[in-house]
Amino acid sequence: MNYRIKDISVEDLVPIMIKWRRDFHKHAEPGWLEFRTASLIADYLEQFGYSLRTGSDVIHHESRMGVPTPELLAEYEAKALAEGANEKWLKRFSGGYTGVVGTIQSKRPGPIIGIRFDMDALNIKESSDKDHFPVENGFVSIRKGVMHACGHDAHMSIGLAVAKYISEHLDELAGTYKLIFQPAEEGVRGAKSMVAAGVLDDVDIFLTSHVGIGVELGTVVSGIDNFLATTKFNARFLGKASHAGGRPEEGRNALLAASSAILNLHSIPRHGKGQSQINVGKLCGGSGRNIIPQSAEMEVETRGETTDINEYMFRKAKMIIKGAAQMYDIDYEIEIVGEAKTSSSSERLKTYIKKSLGDIPCVDTVLDEAPYPIGSEDATYMMNQVIENGGLASYMILGTALAAGHHHEKFDIDEAVLEIGLTSYIGILKGIESLSAGGDGQ
Amino acid sequence: MNYRIKDISVEDLVPIMIKWRRDFHKHAEPGWLEFRTASLIADYLEQFGYSLRTGSDVIHHESRMGVPTPELLAEYEAKALAEGANEKWLKRFSGGYTGVVGTIQSKRPGPIIGIRFDMDALNIKESSDKDHFPVENGFVSIRKGVMHACGHDAHMSIGLAVAKYISEHLDELAGTYKLIFQPAEEGVRGAKSMVAAGVLDDVDIFLTSHVGIGVELGTVVSGIDNFLATTKFNARFLGKASHAGGRPEEGRNALLAASSAILNLHSIPRHGKGQSQINVGKLCGGSGRNIIPQSAEMEVETRGETTDINEYMFRKAKMIIKGAAQMYDIDYEIEIVGEAKTSSSSERLKTYIKKSLGDIPCVDTVLDEAPYPIGSEDATYMMNQVIENGGLASYMILGTALAAGHHHEKFDIDEAVLEIGLTSYIGILKGIESLSAGGDGQ
Amino acid sequence: MNYRIKDISVEDLVPIMIKWRRDFHKHAEPGWLEFRTASLIADYLEQFGYSLRTGSDVIHHESRMGVPTPELLAEYEAKALAEGANEKWLKRFSGGYTGVVGTIQSKRPGPIIGIRFDMDALNIKESSDKDHFPVENGFVSIRKGVMHACGHDAHMSIGLAVAKYISEHLDELAGTYKLIFQPAEEGVRGAKSMVAAGVLDDVDIFLTSHVGIGVELGTVVSGIDNFLATTKFNARFLGKASHAGGRPEEGRNALLAASSAILNLHSIPRHGKGQSQINVGKLCGGSGRNIIPQSAEMEVETRGETTDINEYMFRKAKMIIKGAAQMYDIDYEIEIVGEAKTSSSSERLKTYIKKSLGDIPCVDTVLDEAPYPIGSEDATYMMNQVIENGGLASYMILGTALAAGHHHEKFDIDEAVLEIGLTSYIGILKGIESLSAGGDGQ
Amino acid sequence: MNYRIKDISVEDLVPIMIKWRRDFHKHAEPGWLEFRTASLIADYLEQFGYSLRTGSDVIHHESRMGVPTPELLAEYEAKALAEGANEKWLKRFSGGYTGVVGTIQSKRPGPIIGIRFDMDALNIKESSDKDHFPVENGFVSIRKGVMHACGHDAHMSIGLAVAKYISEHLDELAGTYKLIFQPAEEGVRGAKSMVAAGVLDDVDIFLTSHVGIGVELGTVVSGIDNFLATTKFNARFLGKASHAGGRPEEGRNALLAASSAILNLHSIPRHGKGQSQINVGKLCGGSGRNIIPQSAEMEVETRGETTDINEYMFRKAKMIIKGAAQMYDIDYEIEIVGEAKTSSSSERLKTYIKKSLGDIPCVDTVLDEAPYPIGSEDATYMMNQVIENGGLASYMILGTALAAGHHHEKFDIDEAVLEIGLTSYIGILKGIESLSAGGDGQ
Repeated sequence: MNYRIKDISVEDLVPIMIKWRRDFHKHAEPGWLEFRTASLIADYLEQFGYSLRTGSDVIHHESRMGVPTPELLAEYEAKALAEGANEKWLKRFSGGYTGVVGTIQSKRPGPIIGIRFDMDALNIKESSDKDHFPVENGFVSIRKGVMHACGHDAHMSIGLAVAKYISEHLDELAGTYKLIFQPAEEGVRGAKSMVAAGVLDDVDIFLTSHVGIGVELGTVVSGIDNFLATTKFNARFLGKASHAGGRPEEGRNALLAASSAILNLHSIPRHGKGQSQINVGKLCGGSGRNIIPQSAEMEVETRGETTDINEYMFRKAKMIIKGAAQMYDIDYEIEIVGEAKTSSSSERLKTYIKKSLGDIPCVDTVLDEAPYPIGSEDATYMMNQVIENGGLASYMILGTALAAGHHHEKFDIDEAVLEIGLTSYIGILKGIESLSAGGDGQ
Repeated sequence: MNYRIKDISVEDLVPIMIKWRRDFHKHAEPGWLEFRTASLIADYLEQFGYSLRTGSDVIHHESRMGVPTPELLAEYEAKALAEGANEKWLKRFSGGYTGVVGTIQSKRPGPIIGIRFDMDALNIKESSDKDHFPVENGFVSIRKGVMHACGHDAHMSIGLAVAKYISEHLDELAGTYKLIFQPAEEGVRGAKSMVAAGVLDDVDIFLTSHVGIGVELGTVVSGIDNFLATTKFNARFLGKASHAGGRPEEGRNALLAASSAILNLHSIPRHGKGQSQINVGKLCGGSGRNIIPQSAEMEVETRGETTDINEYMFRKAKMIIKGAAQMYDIDYEIEIVGEAKTSSSSERLKTYIKKSLGDIPCVDTVLDEAPYPIGSEDATYMMNQVIENGGLASYMILGTALAAGHHHEKFDIDEAVLEIGLTSYIGILKGIESLSAGGDGQ
Repeated sequence: MNYRIKDISVEDLVPIMIKWRRDFHKHAEPGWLEFRTASLIADYLEQFGYSLRTGSDVIHHESRMGVPTPELLAEYEAKALAEGANEKWLKRFSGGYTGVVGTIQSKRPGPIIGIRFDMDALNIKESSDKDHFPVENGFVSIRKGVMHACGHDAHMSIGLAVAKYISEHLDELAGTYKLIFQPAEEGVRGAKSMVAAGVLDDVDIFLTSHVGIGVELGTVVSGIDNFLATTKFNARFLGKASHAGGRPEEGRNALLAASSAILNLHSIPRHGKGQSQINVGKLCGGSGRNIIPQSAEMEVETRGETTDINEYMFRKAKMIIKGAAQMYDIDYEIEIVGEAKTSSSSERLKTYIKKSLGDIPCVDTVLDEAPYPIGSEDATYMMNQVIENGGLASYMILGTALAAGHHHEKFDIDEAVLEIGLTSYIGILKGIESLSAGGDGQ
Repeated sequence: MNYRIKDISVEDLVPIMIKWRRDFHKHAEPGWLEFRTASLIADYLEQFGYSLRTGSDVIHHESRMGVPTPELLAEYEAKALAEGANEKWLKRFSGGYTGVVGTIQSKRPGPIIGIRFDMDALNIKESSDKDHFPVENGFVSIRKGVMHACGHDAHMSIGLAVAKYISEHLDELAGTYKLIFQPAEEGVRGAKSMVAAGVLDDVDIFLTSHVGIGVELGTVVSGIDNFLATTKFNARFLGKASHAGGRPEEGRNALLAASSAILNLHSIPRHGKGQSQINVGKLCGGSGRNIIPQSAEMEVETRGETTDINEYMFRKAKMIIKGAAQMYDIDYEIEIVGEAKTSSSSERLKTYIKKSLGDIPCVDTVLDEAPYPIGSEDATYMMNQVIENGGLASYMILGTALAAGHHHEKFDIDEAVLEIGLTSYIGILKGIESLSAGGDGQ
């Protein structure tokens, strides 16, 4: 079967999707630094007829987490310009407000449907092996140490194709379509700031999806629930240096405080009501062998099976860090650099999706649950916001074969998932107005 | 040579000293519990013609440290009565105010000379081996788990004999003699309270001594300096119990706080200007395997080559305990149960002592310095008080062979040290008025 | 309805059950010390016509865990004799082999049915409040600090009544009945040794039950699954003492090793596949403030949602203890004092039980799952043994109101559960032969 | 007074010394990287008529400690060439064998006199403040992050001037002069390898000195004793990474091992017989927040008042690191990167020096002891070697005002010390043969 888009068939669109995906892959940009990526997306959406809101209109300043240094922001903005960013839109993102929201109204009344795609790459050095598909095909990342190793390049490609499809079928569709391109999903840093900017306030039905996650090509999961809540934070300890041989008593040892904190952070009694994890993933402290260490910094994350359990872990962690600093008369600060909640896909929406995908030829199987846990995701902020407002939300998985696991230097998708993604969204969007009538979507 | 005491020669006095010493040894009493001991000493001093101040007149209530429980106080008071304590004086000591100060004035004007003897035994189970001298001679401690394993029994015996000597030679001596029998030297708990009660306020010349300490029989050290300052304290942590399997998150783990405190207490950077030590000698915490530990208690001591260094260690220790409690949201308290300062024997007094001992037949050698460190002593409170008031103070060592080291279950002195002690004090007291004239005592 | 037992109706039996339960409660005995309890049970079973195996015939010597000291064993055996134990059987249990297995054959062929009851009390001081039911009714524990605070007194009472019922209905029942009275369930110490002695080898159908566990009176759970696997162990550290002030370098500090072990035990990364817990519930170490601590001992438990997860935790714990000892050049030993596995009740047996209980008048509700986790249980050893041999096993809960939670000093059951227990077993045993035919029991 | 060097007076030599010192300062090179410095020194010594041994002839390969990476060695060698190194000698030092020993024989028989000067700079970023003397006078270090902040530039300048003086006065002097220019004193890494190469084997009298160290300009210390023994080492922990959210149980956490090591390293009971210190000055471990840390590395030093005490600390430290690694099943390695012993200046040589300096006009005061501890020094290896062979050795201090403390970014000497250094050595060398005759040097 071949969905016909007015001026272009899905079959014709697939090569374009591949081109888009490979271009994003080649010019990979980490979170809050998606200058080139976002400017091109804005440009496309404008060409497709969408009205746009961008930059600090859709990114709430105070709610951003884990923003890079001004130097890094400037460096990536400059690179973006040098590598073909759209100058007009680039200005809107200056300082790292790299969000894009495109809205278009169909010809028929209906709900407001928000669809979210994430745009950022990871700080991973991509493999340069000849047998790595992006190397073979000339689109390996040219950004040293940055790589789309989680499939967000595919997400954006699907997003643009869905946008194109919607714009060509306004008379056949109902309602208003709000396409949300989110920065900084990695480290769960970006979604909160788009929610805080009000982007989700009027959305009735919310859809998002992830490729891969251990699901086979041809299989789609209609909606998942098993997110772990998480808090990502840095702790900094600032003491006082002194000469370790001659004047140790004059120092205040930040590294001893940090080491004591680490052991005790890992010792937090785990919650009796569900999984709870903590990890201090990185620590650096001190300046030299014969100096009492003046400063130390650590990167930490807590996780919980529920938002409450994660909050328990984070609350205890803050207390331990405070106590460890107190032990050595050390100043400290804790900076939250990422946060995600637990959430659940709406049962009614999942049922509708399952039915909608029944006729899509390249979708063999629709599962109700993910076979593997997805970990943490900040789309949960958006899902929870829509559900709290009385709307429906679902987080789907689009199965695909993977060359290597997520976050691996040889990660690669099967590009066949691009067509599956597009046709799945088309299947779902057709008739979605039935859901908002309070009916059961059947 | 035989010193002639009016009614009794030194030679005749020695067998009595041995009797006294063995009686004290047999009825050993720990610090603040010297009910029988102190009551007998008070009785003797009264018989010798001393005017007495006892109990809370010479022990300042608030300055006592490490006082046993009311139950233990009552138990030992009852035992004392049952084992021949003097009832009249016993009442004065009720509640653990077991200090005795006897004063007598000679016929000639002169300085006020304070001489201090300590009375308490240790919580050590004495050996029951047949070859242990006190077993062989029938004066092994009948108080189970309590033993004079540091020689204070000998100190008191010398003290009584010196008291007797003084009382018989009032016309030959000059000045006023204040014999101070101090409780609770072990754990450095008692001297501070006698200083706080004003006992040392009028003393011009202060003398005290210790038997043993690695010095040979026949050798006397004229005065020592190398005391370590020390603080003895207990720390208690009080958290909240909960079931470890089902509700670990409801507990506040006092044992984790204590364990973290221990490691960090031992990690205090040592002072650059001299020896500094810390030891957590004991910890007990928790109630059972499947319960989050609700409480924990530890026994700690800090030491420093100077009072300042010890104060540095104790200040850091308090901070660490506070921080460790904070880590686990735990209440805590710190109780000081003993304290001693550094001090130095007065050079002028040492010189005088050396000269005075030159003619004593049983003293072969007089050293200026101790060959081994003596550790900590709370007589330093008394020494410092006298020196600050412009007086002179010295802490002597009376050498003796030991059957085993101090605090050992087979500790025993050579009783020949009793005569050496008595005759040394006699030698020093004769002519001591030369010192107070501001002269050089020569 | 009134079940008629040949010589005695259930109605008549209930007052006897209450008498039994209160007698066991009053003479509460901890694990491996159930001398009086087990001797009376053996006596009753013999009277009821059972053939008996006892002592080391049913308790495998090497597989016992957490056995008390010889002194305690002797003390409790003596007490048992003084308080009315059956002398003949008492001898069989000497040394703490306090297991009893009674077997009786019905008149009709059928499977071998094992039913297990646990006998031990807890080291908990029972409340002496007047409003505590056992105080009001004169059966509060006369064993100081020992209490049936988990309902095993009720278990045994039900067990004896079931034994009596079976013995009176041999012609109506089918198969062979093996009543297993197990010592030392608390601390999960006893079941393994009965399995190792072969007691379960020929059992086709295994039943056991617990009163309370948060289930209401009148409700029965047909079989539960959510046991946590657990290992209970003690770790001992043996170093070398030395004087902390003078010779710290000569010591090997067992308390520092233990404190380091505690922090790191709690720091074991929790398993990603399910709940995992660890608790160091108790630590004592060191002898005195001024001595480098020579020894330390701790009580620990690990738990896991699966047996594998618990084994992971225990394996890591052993490694950490070894490393901590190595740090301070300390000898150590680890003694396992209790162990339990995960297990699942057989679905077919649960279905049969649910159906069987449908007509029991005092059972209002039968649940398929427990509303609360039961924690750890060593009956799982027996269940697993039977299931591995191709048999069926189920662990039921008999709901009852509780005066206070399990292991609380005011714990008390509603004695109405005794009749519910008896009639539930009667209902299940009638017709149980249908299960062993490989049929579905319906 | 003005010492007359044959062709050049001391007065004329001083400006040249200043030029040398400033040139070395500007082209500061860290330990084992003194390519330019050593090549120029070799060139000068050759010009002065010394016969030279250099490179691996005077640096024992296996005994070098803390050698930089091959990349850094190559980088500095290249820089040296670009900045005017002497090409002929540069080759001899390739790979970091940057030692130079120049020997010259006087006209009269006498002892072999070794004089040692150290050449390396520190990894400290020099101040760029206008009021910093080297900035004002245009000789601030052009090597970014490398600075002569300990005065070794002055040492070398004095060394060259002494060499020049000796070469001009061969007929007036007695004995053989061996000028030893040592690399890598900072971190106490270099001296051991020169001793191991046999450089000190034939030396009868050994002299070395340090500028500054809290001693005033015009004051010289004739020889010091209070060195701390020290061991500098790195510890590396290698575990296994895994995803902290999903598969924590598959990781082996190197950072937990390192943190546990740090706390326990600082907890080593300090030695009872003298000062003992330990410091973990730097730790880095882990790669990212959500990864179980795979590796960690720390920089550590121990110090002791005696070589034995330091060895005690290092032995305990190794045990703790081994145990910490064992705890988490981690591989580890310990690399010693520096080592120094305690030593004492020879009394007879000190007395001779004091007398020799009596007539030097710019030396106001000669002290027998240093007012402040000097910390650790690897010249002790050389001193001990000479003394063990029956020779004499002394370590002098040449006082000077300092702009800021040693190792401070604004450290600077008063260049007047250069003349004091030269004339002091001249004073000492004249008549030094009297010492070797076994006489008392008077």
